[in-house]
Amino acid sequence: MNEPQVTVVGNVATELDHRTTRSGEPAVRFRLAGTVRRFDRAREAWEDAWTSFFTVWAWRTLATNVATSVTLGEPVIVQGRLRVKEEEKEGRRYVTAELLASSIGHDLNRGTAAFRRVSPARAGGGPPEAGTPQVVPGPTGASAPEFGLR
Amino acid sequence: MNEPQVTVVGNVATELDHRTTRSGEPAVRFRLAGTVRRFDRAREAWEDAWTSFFTVWAWRTLATNVATSVTLGEPVIVQGRLRVKEEEKEGRRYVTAELLASSIGHDLNRGTAAFRRVSPARAGGGPPEAGTPQVVPGPTGASAPEFGLR
Amino acid sequence: MNEPQVTVVGNVATELDHRTTRSGEPAVRFRLAGTVRRFDRAREAWEDAWTSFFTVWAWRTLATNVATSVTLGEPVIVQGRLRVKEEEKEGRRYVTAELLASSIGHDLNRGTAAFRRVSPARAGGGPPEAGTPQVVPGPTGASAPEFGLR
Amino acid sequence: MNEPQVTVVGNVATELDHRTTRSGEPAVRFRLAGTVRRFDRAREAWEDAWTSFFTVWAWRTLATNVATSVTLGEPVIVQGRLRVKEEEKEGRRYVTAELLASSIGHDLNRGTAAFRRVSPARAGGGPPEAGTPQVVPGPTGASAPEFGLR
Repeated sequence: MNEPQVTVVGNVATELDHRTTRSGEPAVRFRLAGTVRRFDRAREAWEDAWTSFFTVWAWRTLATNVATSVTLGEPVIVQGRLRVKEEEKEGRRYVTAELLASSIGHDLNRGTAAFRRVSPARAGGGPPEAGTPQVVPGPTGASAPEFGLR
Repeated sequence: MNEPQVTVVGNVATELDHRTTRSGEPAVRFRLAGTVRRFDRAREAWEDAWTSFFTVWAWRTLATNVATSVTLGEPVIVQGRLRVKEEEKEGRRYVTAELLASSIGHDLNRGTAAFRRVSPARAGGGPPEAGTPQVVPGPTGASAPEFGLR
Repeated sequence: MNEPQVTVVGNVATELDHRTTRSGEPAVRFRLAGTVRRFDRAREAWEDAWTSFFTVWAWRTLATNVATSVTLGEPVIVQGRLRVKEEEKEGRRYVTAELLASSIGHDLNRGTAAFRRVSPARAGGGPPEAGTPQVVPGPTGASAPEFGLR
Repeated sequence: MNEPQVTVVGNVATELDHRTTRSGEPAVRFRLAGTVRRFDRAREAWEDAWTSFFTVWAWRTLATNVATSVTLGEPVIVQGRLRVKEEEKEGRRYVTAELLASSIGHDLNRGTAAFRRVSPARAGGGPPEAGTPQVVPGPTGASAPEFGLR
């Protein structure tokens, strides 16, 4: 199929998990919680209808900049390709909705943001600038490498 | 959040399951399999990358017309709101990606279709036309009614 | 940017315009009218809010099957990449919203459809089957070839 | 139709235009330029394929926070409803692609951002905080009020 593209607006629900792909590129992973609100006509008020959870993956420059900019609890907008991933572990089936992010930003409905452009030449390529936090490699992600060559 | 809208192109992977909502309206449910294909540059060929499964729900006129038109194995395009649903059953957690459909059609990449307009006055409202298959009610869906008032 | 993917549900507002690309592949073009409806709380009723028009392009097998299946006035769902195209002609600027279709189907909210699978081997490739209308080439489209290598 | 939702990633191509709706709420408008890049297999390199321009509208708290946070030239991600608007002025027809924004953020592919949450109680409601720029009302927008009651 044509890859389903989806944009989810929600809150970062976990600490960011830093990884490196097999080819040595930075990756970052976090859980995103999106709560849909619905207008209850009987009560004439908005109420929480349900919360969907996604595992968001970002790579390379986007991963590096997200690691610098985004923390637990912040509201974000994430555009990505949607993958519903099924895995078997110890005889049990696990289903995860993954968002392979193509763009991430803070949701300006909820606050303000000061943006600073990163030189494309350096981003993800050259030596990190002063002030850019070092991406601490976690255990190499099992599923990351297969998305490494987007 | 703003409700994530997504469009998935794939194949109907199960027989259609006919339901009625608590308020007596027709509903239909099926599994949709979307296989993402990827171009392998090394081999210079397209290959299957992964398959995502969704549970599609449709209501009212759309449900009635889908029940008449769509069968197991057919290629379809489904537009809907995405809900990642988590449930606890007997101590185990189940995750399902649901598509609450706003529109469904056959995917004309894969074949041809002859369309016949249904009078809006009758559709889902008046007595069924001759030739319209009767929606056989299955056990009333646990999750359907909460989406009944879209 | 990441290409904006959009799905529009509306009505075919023109006759289909058959083309061939420079490389000799079938293409089809039509105008799509999407009328947004809005709930007027004061009047407690739905009303037409506005109509957006798009120029839809399809290629190859999709073009061939759409030519066989879709006619003026029919309701369709179109998924594609969005291009806002600006052109200068005789000193005036023209803006068109184009949808470069990846999938098209009849909107089953509005009627029923009988689907017939076309063998991929033949679709867009081998000799047309009996009953498949011949794609009548119009003047070769100026803008079609540049999208020919999707 | 179901309203087409679209997410565009691009650059702010004009200064922000501050408005107020007839009902006295803040609104902001700017042009967004999205350049699609395409991989040229012959040259084995990425190249600019085309640029689409959109007129982005935001309202209320989102407008206030965008006014504080976003400036000409910055890369953003905008999620909204798409409207292709046609107008007659002095006998000529003008077409504009509008994005009625539901969320806006800086595109973290291109740089980093420091986010500061704005108290919902104050946002768009109470007295502006120190440091929040005052929304300078331009001439009341002709098209803004009709979207005021999203």
